[in-house]
Amino acid sequence: MDNFIFQNPTRVIFGKGQIAALKDELPANARVMVTYGGGSIMRNGVMEQVRKALAGRSVVEFGGIEPNPAYETLMEAVKLAKAEKIDYLLAVGGGSVVDGTKFIAAALKFEGADPWDILAKHAPVKAAVPLACVLTLPATGTEMNGNSVVSRKATGDKLAFHSTLVLPQFSILDPETTYSLPVRQVANGVVDAFVHTTEQYLTYPVDARIQDRFAEGILQTLIEEGPRALAEPQNYAVRANVMWAATQALNGLIGTGVPQDWATHMIGHELTAMHGLDHAQTLAIVLPALLEEQRQGKREKLLQFASRVWGLNSGDEESRITAAIQATRDFFERMGVPTRLSGHKLNGSSIPAVVAKLREHGMIALGERQAITPEVSQRILERAR
Amino acid sequence: MDNFIFQNPTRVIFGKGQIAALKDELPANARVMVTYGGGSIMRNGVMEQVRKALAGRSVVEFGGIEPNPAYETLMEAVKLAKAEKIDYLLAVGGGSVVDGTKFIAAALKFEGADPWDILAKHAPVKAAVPLACVLTLPATGTEMNGNSVVSRKATGDKLAFHSTLVLPQFSILDPETTYSLPVRQVANGVVDAFVHTTEQYLTYPVDARIQDRFAEGILQTLIEEGPRALAEPQNYAVRANVMWAATQALNGLIGTGVPQDWATHMIGHELTAMHGLDHAQTLAIVLPALLEEQRQGKREKLLQFASRVWGLNSGDEESRITAAIQATRDFFERMGVPTRLSGHKLNGSSIPAVVAKLREHGMIALGERQAITPEVSQRILERAR
Repeated sequence: MDNFIFQNPTRVIFGKGQIAALKDELPANARVMVTYGGGSIMRNGVMEQVRKALAGRSVVEFGGIEPNPAYETLMEAVKLAKAEKIDYLLAVGGGSVVDGTKFIAAALKFEGADPWDILAKHAPVKAAVPLACVLTLPATGTEMNGNSVVSRKATGDKLAFHSTLVLPQFSILDPETTYSLPVRQVANGVVDAFVHTTEQYLTYPVDARIQDRFAEGILQTLIEEGPRALAEPQNYAVRANVMWAATQALNGLIGTGVPQDWATHMIGHELTAMHGLDHAQTLAIVLPALLEEQRQGKREKLLQFASRVWGLNSGDEESRITAAIQATRDFFERMGVPTRLSGHKLNGSSIPAVVAKLREHGMIALGERQAITPEVSQRILERAR
Repeated sequence: MDNFIFQNPTRVIFGKGQIAALKDELPANARVMVTYGGGSIMRNGVMEQVRKALAGRSVVEFGGIEPNPAYETLMEAVKLAKAEKIDYLLAVGGGSVVDGTKFIAAALKFEGADPWDILAKHAPVKAAVPLACVLTLPATGTEMNGNSVVSRKATGDKLAFHSTLVLPQFSILDPETTYSLPVRQVANGVVDAFVHTTEQYLTYPVDARIQDRFAEGILQTLIEEGPRALAEPQNYAVRANVMWAATQALNGLIGTGVPQDWATHMIGHELTAMHGLDHAQTLAIVLPALLEEQRQGKREKLLQFASRVWGLNSGDEESRITAAIQATRDFFERMGVPTRLSGHKLNGSSIPAVVAKLREHGMIALGERQAITPEVSQRILERAR
């Protein structure tokens, strides 16, 4: 096990009816801006619960944060928040709304010329407006981490930043808010959480047994509960298990003291930027192809994954690895998420352009061994046609 | 899954050489009191590393905190800390030192007449001096929770309190500090962490899959690594796995949203108070007997435990449960910890007195269903003769 530091102070308030806790959790005199997305929270009763809990407070609302939140939109929110002297942000929605709100929080306190530098030049985040969230889509883990991914419409860039200063102060997770999610979003969320876990697990072994067992437990839970979430959308226990699994997949815990990959995410980001595919759709395309391409480097963990997660214990090692990758592919497909470019009517002609974008963004040595060069990324994408 | 709130802000600094981080982690102008136990840290180099990291600071040392830390001793520390105007406590040692230091932290700010009321009358802890720890014995999880257990020599009482105000600000966990631990303490630590896990896992199912899988992962890790820690005391990976398992066993995570038992602990505390047995020694005696006594109420989780933790999948249900309890008993014995009163040359004649103490302390409805009355506790102890 490698040395590590782990700290995650976010307060998670989990369960049915917990949105009412906003009343007590938000500081009494805060000037709050509620941020949200396309308005589904208006239809499913979530916003009504939020407004009820915030009755009598000074609240400004900012809607319209889109999937793959756009810098351009978020800067509008920054403008409004400055005008309204906002000192607390409450994101109500899924990963895009929360990620976008983290950027707003950092941009409001940014002292440089252009907050875009936080993303493009890794300009340090030295302060941020405190934020919290009501999560309505289990997927990204943003509710309990300091990560944010923001896109820029004008240039097609999709870039990430991380700061402990944008960790939510608290996050309310009510599984009932996920009952009305579209099938595609449920499926994407499960795939996203699954790939977050494999990015921290399918690398090379460092004999970190708690981290491995926890990662395997998350994967097993997603495999068991993901299809049930589609089949039984109002099954509370299923929704709760998926939601808590997604949080645990990316709150830092399973990544402590172990190597991490993240090449699937980096390649996937370029596919989203280029073709507008959903984040999770890109992960489902890249991961199986990447595992095939990296099967030697990831050999020991792939065998462990085959045995412990998929119960594949017979046959020779190569066939067990092949079967585990196929089982992963089948799982994504069973969730309704295609695992090839062709599943989105893409013939692969954009692969050179995607690889060029990787180069442009400095993504030239990806993976746990920094061995995924642009040439390897190209081979991965070719395998994913 | 039941509703829950989870928050654990303790900063864990894990790995070899991390004691040096004290230099940066402790606030610059703090007046620090370093608390410790019987002096093993003087012989194994830990105190030397601590003193080196604190060179040039205003530091007072208080040693002599005993196993099952005594109120009487801790109040001496309170007196010294007041005289020295201490505003930060650094516990260096195992669970007893850290638990004792938590009491010191709360007692220093207690406004009532007698800090013993925190334990005996559940007097609320409204403030505490900040504290941190350098943990040298993986066992109790105290390094990442707000729990403390304190004994009173004069009366033979052993009582607990909990407050988020005594959560360590940071905890340094260097597995190398555990190389020189006596065999008995290593074994006790593994048993303690194991039983912390079963207290939160072997109850009744609420379909909380992440919590179950994480608990099973901790148990599997302890079963794999516990005996290796005894056989290969300087195996870093083994020590690291045991240490991180013990932290995860009682930092709140696996207990979120699930029923909890704790009867084994409550009965065990009385055995320690009565006979001076080590805490873990009492758990190893009580748990197997309690599982036998409660096998109907815990039936479904015992079957899951048999299958997932012990790989027991054949035979009828009763025999699988029996085999799982026997495997648990064998594991404790293999760690060198006796699982019967007779293993400590006790003939059971004190059982009525132990049960009387349980009544005296209000422990009349223990367990996840509050069904363990003093009569049931008596039967458990009879089974443990």
